[in-house]
Amino acid sequence: METIPVLNDIRQAHQRIGPFIHRTPVLTSELINQKANCSIFFKCENFQKVGAFKMRGAANAILSLPATKISGGVATHSSGNHAQALAKAAKSTGAPAHIVMPESAPEVKVKAVRDYGAKIYFCNSSLEAREQTLKSVLQETSATFIHPYDDYDVITGQATAALELIEEIETLDILIAPVGGGGLLSGTSLATSYLLPEAIIYGAEPSGADDAKRSLDLGMIHPSISPDTIADGLLTSLSERTFGIIKQHVRDIITVDDQEIMAALRLVWERLKIVIEPSAAVPLAAVFKRPELFSEKRIGLIISGGNVDLQSLQISGL
Amino acid sequence: METIPVLNDIRQAHQRIGPFIHRTPVLTSELINQKANCSIFFKCENFQKVGAFKMRGAANAILSLPATKISGGVATHSSGNHAQALAKAAKSTGAPAHIVMPESAPEVKVKAVRDYGAKIYFCNSSLEAREQTLKSVLQETSATFIHPYDDYDVITGQATAALELIEEIETLDILIAPVGGGGLLSGTSLATSYLLPEAIIYGAEPSGADDAKRSLDLGMIHPSISPDTIADGLLTSLSERTFGIIKQHVRDIITVDDQEIMAALRLVWERLKIVIEPSAAVPLAAVFKRPELFSEKRIGLIISGGNVDLQSLQISGL
Repeated sequence: METIPVLNDIRQAHQRIGPFIHRTPVLTSELINQKANCSIFFKCENFQKVGAFKMRGAANAILSLPATKISGGVATHSSGNHAQALAKAAKSTGAPAHIVMPESAPEVKVKAVRDYGAKIYFCNSSLEAREQTLKSVLQETSATFIHPYDDYDVITGQATAALELIEEIETLDILIAPVGGGGLLSGTSLATSYLLPEAIIYGAEPSGADDAKRSLDLGMIHPSISPDTIADGLLTSLSERTFGIIKQHVRDIITVDDQEIMAALRLVWERLKIVIEPSAAVPLAAVFKRPELFSEKRIGLIISGGNVDLQSLQISGL
Repeated sequence: METIPVLNDIRQAHQRIGPFIHRTPVLTSELINQKANCSIFFKCENFQKVGAFKMRGAANAILSLPATKISGGVATHSSGNHAQALAKAAKSTGAPAHIVMPESAPEVKVKAVRDYGAKIYFCNSSLEAREQTLKSVLQETSATFIHPYDDYDVITGQATAALELIEEIETLDILIAPVGGGGLLSGTSLATSYLLPEAIIYGAEPSGADDAKRSLDLGMIHPSISPDTIADGLLTSLSERTFGIIKQHVRDIITVDDQEIMAALRLVWERLKIVIEPSAAVPLAAVFKRPELFSEKRIGLIISGGNVDLQSLQISGL
């Protein structure tokens, strides 16, 4: 797909990926609502397959390929949720998967990707090395590259989370999602602009990786340079396609620091009784940070994922 | 109620408490099933109001009182989930609540009980002091004492968790629940014996608090003396009423050590993406401990609660 997805594209994507994803629950907490003085509807993609919304985009991108290309397989470079999602979606749809990962990737993530049957190619962790390794994989195989977010089929897949949320809750004043590369936020923006044109859309971003905020303020993509935050799913830069959609639909991007992120994470763990990753706590931290924007409102909030390494997270130090 | 509850009592209790409780979800994990070589259906009472199954028994006990007694209020001594559940159920039903708590109770639990509007009476943490303080509260007020488990109305309320699980899943070979005072296990046993008379019922208990296992083996109540386990919801002794039911219906009680409990807890957090308390991980640890009992079986497992103090739990040391 090479034009900005329309509502029908999102609906068709939802049909297409239906057998390969979970319809995730929408949870609420009386106590969090009281504390934040608003009504928050948490769309819980931590319960999605592979533990993150990324399964939606990966599945849609693979299933949107022509049959001949599906059998040729897919490839990407990623050390995070996109790698697992592409590997799992490829396995579900019968496509071979080739994943380039940095040697420094956590063993648990490497194992997950391998368990889904993907072929792993290690390289050093520089972007150049990853791109070079991917390039040679694409030359040696007939695999199609699936970018983690700069791809309208991926964006359309991510949009289905907001589609489900809006269909279920119907009346929402605001939608908010975290922003890293912008796949989830652009998809959320599209679905919201079609289904709830009056609703306001915010992005939420760690202040230690505030390239999307700077990009929106500047009107042009500001790359993510030396990001430093516990929200390790939100380190990447926006892309042409995601930024194009975001600058059209997103009112503002709210930044929060790691302490605010961990306080929100802890509240969700203790009150909703669900495990979410630090990146997924960023929007709730933003709601607490800017009460003047959110008070008394009905808010749809996308919980992006729940893949957290309990051993590395020093919970006792919260 | 002074005779062992029958099926109709459990059904009536379920109707009675319906407006005051959540119908909690039943979750599954492909990966946990593969690892354990069986099919486990997790009944997630961590999502129950106040974060634990105790809400069911507390609500049923209050609502089973005559109207005049409800207005006189209820009282108990507890520093755990029963205190919160009774306070919340009392608030929901308009009854005053009087809760005796040890001065050593964690501030977060005291605050929760106070936030539900209960009156708190502090005493030192010996059982004698708690009973003496409760006695004087009962003398000074017109409140009715609600025991945390030695009460057929409480047991009947706890039985509604298994009722919902069995109604939803229908075919189960085994049910398993943790055992402390035995309210949940006895209630689970009753519902199972009526609805799935062929199913086998197991209790699961920390080896550092194995009084229920000893009691079942001895055929008489063996008190819990100096229990020592991370599963702090399972420290208490069985009572006459709970033991009477358990010895009739429970095949065996499986004991697991704290390391096995924390490994099961971590698996649930990481794979089901839900926050459960150590006591709630005890049954899954038991499933892994005794594969000869559980392999290839369909197992209903009650997740008792999710009230965990993240600050005190040294997750990084798992």
